[in-house]
Amino acid sequence: MSVGSDTETVGAAIPPPNVFSSACASRETLQHLTGRWGTLTLAALLLAEAPLRFGEIRRRIDGISDRMLSQTLNQLERDGFVERHVLSNIPPHVEYALTTLGRRIAEPLLALIGLVEGELPSVLAARAAYDRRDG
Amino acid sequence: MSVGSDTETVGAAIPPPNVFSSACASRETLQHLTGRWGTLTLAALLLAEAPLRFGEIRRRIDGISDRMLSQTLNQLERDGFVERHVLSNIPPHVEYALTTLGRRIAEPLLALIGLVEGELPSVLAARAAYDRRDG
Repeated sequence: MSVGSDTETVGAAIPPPNVFSSACASRETLQHLTGRWGTLTLAALLLAEAPLRFGEIRRRIDGISDRMLSQTLNQLERDGFVERHVLSNIPPHVEYALTTLGRRIAEPLLALIGLVEGELPSVLAARAAYDRRDG
Repeated sequence: MSVGSDTETVGAAIPPPNVFSSACASRETLQHLTGRWGTLTLAALLLAEAPLRFGEIRRRIDGISDRMLSQTLNQLERDGFVERHVLSNIPPHVEYALTTLGRRIAEPLLALIGLVEGELPSVLAARAAYDRRDG
């Protein structure tokens, strides 16, 4: 039937988002969130519970460079997870905050961080056992 | 008081795990989980609800190379999130499964993936608005 065929063609042309597909825009978004600094930047903003200035975020994330923090904030702002507010103080300054969507996205990442910190003794024990076995 | 001082010294010598500190082993563990392929590998194993062979995992994660999957599985096994089972079939073969800890760790990552896929229209709209404004 031609109606059925048309529906199938439309369905095939616009597949649902799938991070397992390298061509899907959701894969790139996931990389921005989980990449080297994305998770820590989102977590720092969620934990602060208030907008932060650039230098405040940088001091909370040990080891991040100005350049990497700038690139990470730009990606997160472009994807709609972070808002940049320019305040017209004298001198003017810029603050960064999570959007509503950014807050929802940051919550499972903060849960992950809590697990990683809480289970670190198990991780270190697993590493020691692996290295004794295979080292 | 000397007892109080001793306690403080011990407390200072062994700070609690903190991913925001670049020297903490939890930071490295977080990078293994969120790095370029860790999240997708854990999610593929959680979604499968059964042990998977190397080639099965590779086919589910579009774009991953043998070398990167091998390195990712080794890191996740060493940290105690993935178990490697060598089955004595003829020919013998190897299967990978999440450990109990790996399953707990994979759950917030799967929640993150669900959000990223579900909110992709919002992300694409945010990108378009950003590019119109700043592009």
